[in-house]
Amino acid sequence: MYDLWYWPGIPGRGEFVRLAMEAGGIPYRDCGRDEGVEALMADWQRPRDQPAYAPPYLVADGETIAQTANILLFLADRHPELAPAGRRHWVNQLQLTVLDATGEAHDVHHPLGGGLYYEDQKPEAARRAKEFREERIPKFLLYFERALAHEGDWLAGEAWSYADLSLFHLVEGLRFAFPTRMAKVERDCPKVTALHDAVAALPELRDYLASDRRQPFADGLFRHYPELDG
Amino acid sequence: MYDLWYWPGIPGRGEFVRLAMEAGGIPYRDCGRDEGVEALMADWQRPRDQPAYAPPYLVADGETIAQTANILLFLADRHPELAPAGRRHWVNQLQLTVLDATGEAHDVHHPLGGGLYYEDQKPEAARRAKEFREERIPKFLLYFERALAHEGDWLAGEAWSYADLSLFHLVEGLRFAFPTRMAKVERDCPKVTALHDAVAALPELRDYLASDRRQPFADGLFRHYPELDG
Repeated sequence: MYDLWYWPGIPGRGEFVRLAMEAGGIPYRDCGRDEGVEALMADWQRPRDQPAYAPPYLVADGETIAQTANILLFLADRHPELAPAGRRHWVNQLQLTVLDATGEAHDVHHPLGGGLYYEDQKPEAARRAKEFREERIPKFLLYFERALAHEGDWLAGEAWSYADLSLFHLVEGLRFAFPTRMAKVERDCPKVTALHDAVAALPELRDYLASDRRQPFADGLFRHYPELDG
Repeated sequence: MYDLWYWPGIPGRGEFVRLAMEAGGIPYRDCGRDEGVEALMADWQRPRDQPAYAPPYLVADGETIAQTANILLFLADRHPELAPAGRRHWVNQLQLTVLDATGEAHDVHHPLGGGLYYEDQKPEAARRAKEFREERIPKFLLYFERALAHEGDWLAGEAWSYADLSLFHLVEGLRFAFPTRMAKVERDCPKVTALHDAVAALPELRDYLASDRRQPFADGLFRHYPELDG
C-alpha cells in the first residue's frame, strides 16, 4: 500500500501518478485528497530523512519519494507492467517532456510567478499565451507524433506505459485550457489523438475515469481562460 | 565513448552532464561545442528511433538518450561511481529539483517566453525577479540545506554523486546571476556553501574546472543583469 500526498481539489501533477496507480491496479491512499490540505501540510513539513521539495510525494515502506517523474520511475521499478523492461530511460525521457509541456502550460497563466494571482498578470499572460499556443503546443505535440511514428500504437512497445497515460492527461489538459487551438493542432497529430482515445478506452481505467476519485480540472496547472485561447 | 550534443558557447543544461562525465573520468566527445551549431542542428533533426525533444542528448552505442536528468540516470546505471547503489531515486529527485531551480532562473529573464529577447520583456523580468530573489532562491537552497542536515558532507552517502556536482553548478550559476542576493542567502545555507566548495576542490575536477573545456556563463540559462539582482 502506498500513500500519495498531493494538493486536494485539482488533478495537478498528482494525476500522472494516480493514472499509473489506477491503470496498474496498484493499491494506494490518496491522502491529500481524502484528508485535506492541513493534513498534507503537516505531513509534508514533518522531519524526514529524504524531504520532498514539493508535493506530489509518495510514502512507501517508510521511504519518501518526490518529484513526479521520479515517483513514476520508482513505481515502474517495482511494478514492471508500468513500463517495458529495457525501455525505462525512453519512458522517463518522454515523461520528463510531458512534464515540461505541463510546466509551460502553467506558466502561461502565471508568467510573473506563482506568488501573484492571474488577475494581477493578465496582460503578461496574454503575451505569453500567444507563443505557447502558436509555437509550443505544436512543437510538443509534433514531437510526440514523431516519437509514435517509430513505435506502434503506444510510445514504448506493444502495450501502454506510464508515459502513454501521461500524454493522455496532457492532451486532456490542453483541450480543457486551449480548446480552440487544440482542435487545430490535433489535425496534424493523428497518432497523438489516437493514443489519447486508446488510453481513454482502457478497461483498466474505465472505473477510475468515470469515478469522482478523478478530480475535474479547475484552478490548477491547466486553466481555461477564454482570452488566452484562440 | 559517448557523444554529448549540446548548444555551443554556454554551459547550459549540458554542464550538468559534463561535470558528471569529467568527475567520473568517463570519456566523451563534446560534439556541439567542438563541431558547432550547424552540426548540432543536423544531428538533432536526423531521423532516429528515439528522437530528442531538445539538446542536451547523448548518443551511446547508437542509442539516443535525452532530457538532462534522464541522461544522468542512464550514466549512473552504467557507471556506479556517479551515484550510490540503493539511492538512485533520491539522487534523481535532487537532480530534478536542481533542474527546477535552473529552469526558474532562466524564466526570470524570459518570463514571456523564449521567443522574445530580454530587451523586449525587461519590466516583466523585473517583476518576476523580485519573487525569484526573495522567495524562490531561499526556498530552493534551504531545501538542499535541509536535505544535507540528514546526510554528511554530501547529498547521498559518503562520497559525491552527480546531484552534488549539479548543486555546485546551480550555486555557481546563481552567484553569477544574482551575486548580491546570493551573498545574503548563503549566510543561511552553510552546508550548501561547504558542499559547493568541496566540489570545487575535487581532484577529479581540478583539470576540467581550470580548462577552457569549461565554458563561462554568458547569455544562457544563468545571466547577470544587475537590474534583476538586489
